Amino acid sequence: MCKKVALTGDRPTGCLHLGHYIGTLQSRVHLQHEYDQYVMIADVQALTDYFANPSKISDSLFEVVADYISVGIDPELTTIFVQSEISALPELMMYYMNLVTTSRLERNPTVKTELQQKNFGGEGIPAGFLCYPISQAADITAFKAEVVPVGEDQLPLIEQCNEIVRKFNRLYGVDCLKEAKAHLSQTARLVGIDGKAKASKSLNNAIFLSDSADIVKQKVYSMFTDPDHIKISDPGKIEGNVVFTYLDAFYRDKSEIESLKQQYQKGGLGDTALKSLLNETLQSLLSPIREKRKSLRRDYLYDVIHHGSIKARAIANETLREVKDAIGLNFFNK
Amino acid sequence: MCKKVALTGDRPTGCLHLGHYIGTLQSRVHLQHEYDQYVMIADVQALTDYFANPSKISDSLFEVVADYISVGIDPELTTIFVQSEISALPELMMYYMNLVTTSRLERNPTVKTELQQKNFGGEGIPAGFLCYPISQAADITAFKAEVVPVGEDQLPLIEQCNEIVRKFNRLYGVDCLKEAKAHLSQTARLVGIDGKAKASKSLNNAIFLSDSADIVKQKVYSMFTDPDHIKISDPGKIEGNVVFTYLDAFYRDKSEIESLKQQYQKGGLGDTALKSLLNETLQSLLSPIREKRKSLRRDYLYDVIHHGSIKARAIANETLREVKDAIGLNFFNK
Repeated sequence: MCKKVALTGDRPTGCLHLGHYIGTLQSRVHLQHEYDQYVMIADVQALTDYFANPSKISDSLFEVVADYISVGIDPELTTIFVQSEISALPELMMYYMNLVTTSRLERNPTVKTELQQKNFGGEGIPAGFLCYPISQAADITAFKAEVVPVGEDQLPLIEQCNEIVRKFNRLYGVDCLKEAKAHLSQTARLVGIDGKAKASKSLNNAIFLSDSADIVKQKVYSMFTDPDHIKISDPGKIEGNVVFTYLDAFYRDKSEIESLKQQYQKGGLGDTALKSLLNETLQSLLSPIREKRKSLRRDYLYDVIHHGSIKARAIANETLREVKDAIGLNFFNK
Repeated sequence: MCKKVALTGDRPTGCLHLGHYIGTLQSRVHLQHEYDQYVMIADVQALTDYFANPSKISDSLFEVVADYISVGIDPELTTIFVQSEISALPELMMYYMNLVTTSRLERNPTVKTELQQKNFGGEGIPAGFLCYPISQAADITAFKAEVVPVGEDQLPLIEQCNEIVRKFNRLYGVDCLKEAKAHLSQTARLVGIDGKAKASKSLNNAIFLSDSADIVKQKVYSMFTDPDHIKISDPGKIEGNVVFTYLDAFYRDKSEIESLKQQYQKGGLGDTALKSLLNETLQSLLSPIREKRKSLRRDYLYDVIHHGSIKARAIANETLREVKDAIGLNFFNK
């Protein structure tokens, strides 16, 4: 009961892939034993990008839950909940919105980078997008999360949250909100099978946890290697060779990989042999996940997020009560 | 049951005064017979200005309810509710925030004027302030208000709301949100007793509905008239003469006022006689209001806003359900 709370989550905009697996999913499977872990399916936050195409979110939601459970996130140890079911979150956000200026949001490095990538241009920046760091602060503080697993690019969001926490506690003379620490994930982002960019659904260059064995094999055999490595006897390059990147990430015997790399660089090791090894590796990783996934009935997934959301709602409501008490706006629920 | 809905409200930041009486309170007493009227005590909106001094809001809340009921707003005809009690409002706001750009908010004439007045300066504009028109759109649409009594300076807020309504309905292919019409109040704003500006609590130049008979008399006798009208026989000026402004607003017999004005301009009518007439007029207006106010017990006021808030909550929740259905985010409440 004295475990620290960890909060993490995903925007449900498609099935999860191997990049998520090494980036966050594996870490959650470990963290759930150390922490009181909450995993939020951030459908509302996804809307800041997909408000004009919301079916992408509703179609993905149960797929993401299935991905979670099939990789070993255990609903007995981890509370999986749906953001849009927790009405205290937008209420907290609204109270925090008075404590953050628009210029501070525009200066947030994560927001700045995303603004450049998204290029809203003449249309202007939707208020919901600019304010999403405040929404994240609501998520984190609602559960009094002390640990938030994030990538390095998201550190400014934790800092923004902690600024709100300090300002709120100082302004209202309380200590009900807790500062959070980032838990940096060690693994780098996984490159796409084309070697060009991060694996992602939108670039169609990712291997999904739910891909069939045939599709996985097909994707592995289409991976980018070294275009100058024509004959088996040719020396081959390791840098930018996606097959090696994936073997580094997923093959357990690191010394064997080292000797394969040496052999490849000298010449005498063919791409097909390497791809066959990677395919076997990924099949043995994904096969039990796929089997587990098949066994999950929709009713069960529904129950998991329903119960998770009920539990999360009670906790967030309690924080909201403390926040409204601190401000002095709790007229009926004392 | 087929009456149109009217929504109106006040930020609870002090007792209401005669300016409110002629500006909105009188009109609400009439509107409650024509419309299904909701009066919102906008404590959350008040926080956008008073987040650093929230006790101003909590201290005023019951005073404002007492003002409402003492002037004749009837809880049997009008639903009086507290904004912070309606969690569906920030949820609706959050969904609407994706549909409005920050540049559109900055171009809103009402927001522009207020930004100039408030002069946030180096501190920057709080996100809550910039987004308050979206919060108002949530209030109006939650109750499907078709009529919103406002002053002319607030018309851009209704237009902003209707833009959101049209965009939401078009984007999600629904018609669940309703456009609202402004109901312009006819009476001009009441000048302060010093003649310098609008009557307001912060300028300490207003006559409050809860002022004692002595205080009212004292304020009337300190009113600005015509500084050049020294002797009774001197001709006096009507323009800028606060006593005449108040008589115009509160004295019933308009032809009698006309003949008093002529007499004053010619000379031969003293300020004291005029102030005595205004004092009698205001005492007879305020005396029953003050008596009614005294009879209102705190328990009763509590019950009024408690029941009003329960009723308002159910209606706003129903709209939220429709909105989430339209977006496709209603997973458990179908």
